[in-house]
Amino acid sequence: MQVKAAVAYSVGQPLTIETIELEGPQAGEVLVEIKASGVCHTDAYTLSGADPEGLFPAILGHEGAGVVVEVGADVKSVKPGDHVIPLYTPECRQCEYCLSLKTNLCQAIRTTQGRGLMPNGTSRFSIGGNMIHHYMGTSTFANYTVLPEIAVAKIREDAPFDKVCYIGCGVTTGIGAVIYTAKVEAGANVVIFGLGGIGLNIIQAAKMVGANMIVGVDINPKKRALAEKLGMTHFVNPHEIAGDLVPYIIDLTKGGADYSFECIGNVNVMRQALECCHKGWGVSVIIGVAGAGQEISTRPFQLVTGRVWKGSAFGGARGRTDVPKIVDLYMNGKINVDDLITHVMPIEQINHAFDLMHRGESIRSVVTF
Amino acid sequence: MQVKAAVAYSVGQPLTIETIELEGPQAGEVLVEIKASGVCHTDAYTLSGADPEGLFPAILGHEGAGVVVEVGADVKSVKPGDHVIPLYTPECRQCEYCLSLKTNLCQAIRTTQGRGLMPNGTSRFSIGGNMIHHYMGTSTFANYTVLPEIAVAKIREDAPFDKVCYIGCGVTTGIGAVIYTAKVEAGANVVIFGLGGIGLNIIQAAKMVGANMIVGVDINPKKRALAEKLGMTHFVNPHEIAGDLVPYIIDLTKGGADYSFECIGNVNVMRQALECCHKGWGVSVIIGVAGAGQEISTRPFQLVTGRVWKGSAFGGARGRTDVPKIVDLYMNGKINVDDLITHVMPIEQINHAFDLMHRGESIRSVVTF
Repeated sequence: MQVKAAVAYSVGQPLTIETIELEGPQAGEVLVEIKASGVCHTDAYTLSGADPEGLFPAILGHEGAGVVVEVGADVKSVKPGDHVIPLYTPECRQCEYCLSLKTNLCQAIRTTQGRGLMPNGTSRFSIGGNMIHHYMGTSTFANYTVLPEIAVAKIREDAPFDKVCYIGCGVTTGIGAVIYTAKVEAGANVVIFGLGGIGLNIIQAAKMVGANMIVGVDINPKKRALAEKLGMTHFVNPHEIAGDLVPYIIDLTKGGADYSFECIGNVNVMRQALECCHKGWGVSVIIGVAGAGQEISTRPFQLVTGRVWKGSAFGGARGRTDVPKIVDLYMNGKINVDDLITHVMPIEQINHAFDLMHRGESIRSVVTF
Repeated sequence: MQVKAAVAYSVGQPLTIETIELEGPQAGEVLVEIKASGVCHTDAYTLSGADPEGLFPAILGHEGAGVVVEVGADVKSVKPGDHVIPLYTPECRQCEYCLSLKTNLCQAIRTTQGRGLMPNGTSRFSIGGNMIHHYMGTSTFANYTVLPEIAVAKIREDAPFDKVCYIGCGVTTGIGAVIYTAKVEAGANVVIFGLGGIGLNIIQAAKMVGANMIVGVDINPKKRALAEKLGMTHFVNPHEIAGDLVPYIIDLTKGGADYSFECIGNVNVMRQALECCHKGWGVSVIIGVAGAGQEISTRPFQLVTGRVWKGSAFGGARGRTDVPKIVDLYMNGKINVDDLITHVMPIEQINHAFDLMHRGESIRSVVTF
């Protein structure tokens, strides 16, 4: 079939809206009509060429929502008409990782997904007979896409596509880091480094679970108002305090953070996030993606005296199991997605969405079809 | 009263056996007759001068067992005749740390203990009117010592002093790291770096809880026999393998360690211990004490993909609550302490015990009174 897509032909070039060919779903695959897709920093990271695993040409996009149109042989968990969110972290429920009960990092289709292909080793996208890569197993910058059955989360039908698409990445990454990875408990003091989309979602999740102090750290004072609306209780601008940041936060929290989150990707901030944790039990969670080859460091004494250093990918959420629950949290008014989606535009304006992101003028742009 | 003690007068000098003065217990304090004491690397570390917090003159020793002789006012939890193990990590059950339920690092008397003094800010030891420091709040290289009530664990009376004294530090540090800090579950694959006393205790605790592979890593092949007796299933000598250690261990364990333990104090080995952990869920526990100012490093990707980096002090054991349980484990035949105590000698030969340790010819020497 012919579909409309924003094609990334090569590094650093704007996307071009094209009509391309999409093959129908094979066994274990699902054809989904994408209704809306968020535009995420990870898409920009790959398009920029900084992603060493980036492949071109490709259909980018990994934060979508849509409706199942057709299913291939052997597909049992979804049917045409079901509303779904594509999952760049699938959940096969059969691999060693899924069955461990300890991680959400399903490895069932990792190799082919990393090569921009469907699990059988081929692409469904092409133009003029030339193959176009899938991206993160999702390729949501097209009005139709084909996905492995294990990479779609079935969600409730009353959820608006142009809002819940954001749950396909950013919302779940932030909310999940709090409720699945860190398991923040009521009364805890939480410190968040970086008040972009992930940080804002961590703030509102911390508020949801009853955290006490919710301290946001950012060098941009413009981030303060929305962060406070979502639940931030204290704002710290490292440029505006006297002395070092770590002792400042330890003093502010009367001993240190029970939980800290790094949402920037800066290895120096990752160290600060660990070292501002409370002796004895503070847990620091790395979410931001550091530059290639960069390393984190600390004195081992920080760990021997009880701090824990860990990380979180896709919020520790199991895609098919937990993403529908996060949609419910939104629909039940427990979390605010509407205020985080600052721009909605047709797919034809997708390059404008990237520009807004690069200029820091959007939290999340959503493109619609 | 007059007591017999091994006095450390200054850095690097042999201990001297002296008769010194010991004041009786004040309110909240306990006079204990020490029957036996282990000689630990930490004592040697302080005596060597490498410990930046070392104070002289002092009565070293922190791995003792003995009998309560007299109690000061307000002491309720022990009485004369009770058998006890002194605790360098006390358990007040009232401070923020004890009440957190998240750590064993009671802070009730930390400041005075670090200054070589009892909680009221004075020492009970002196010679010729000159004050001698306490050490680690325990000072077990004397046939009598005074301890805070919160720093004694009451143990069963049928436990032999010259064995269970080792539970005052090394045994609990290793056993506790497995059962309290890491909470190793049956079927897990465990990798231990460094097969000294701590490493051997980790091995036997891993066996006790039903671990699957128990991999010991050491550059000294002489460590192998006893480690195997205690439960090690695989021995890896980094000098004898082809290629790098981390991929070797990941291959050996078919994916990586579920739990790894660093018992050396080498920051490079700490990194290997983390990076040999299984993607998705591997937990690496730092126990060894690194040199002053040394730092650990890794790529944050190691944590974002699910590995957890933490530490353990005194095995995460709460002194008064858990040390008696570990004595029970020994008395019930669940753990082997006898084979780990390789030398027993009178206190007069304590310098020989240090020599054996420095030459690597003992696992644990115990001095008796």
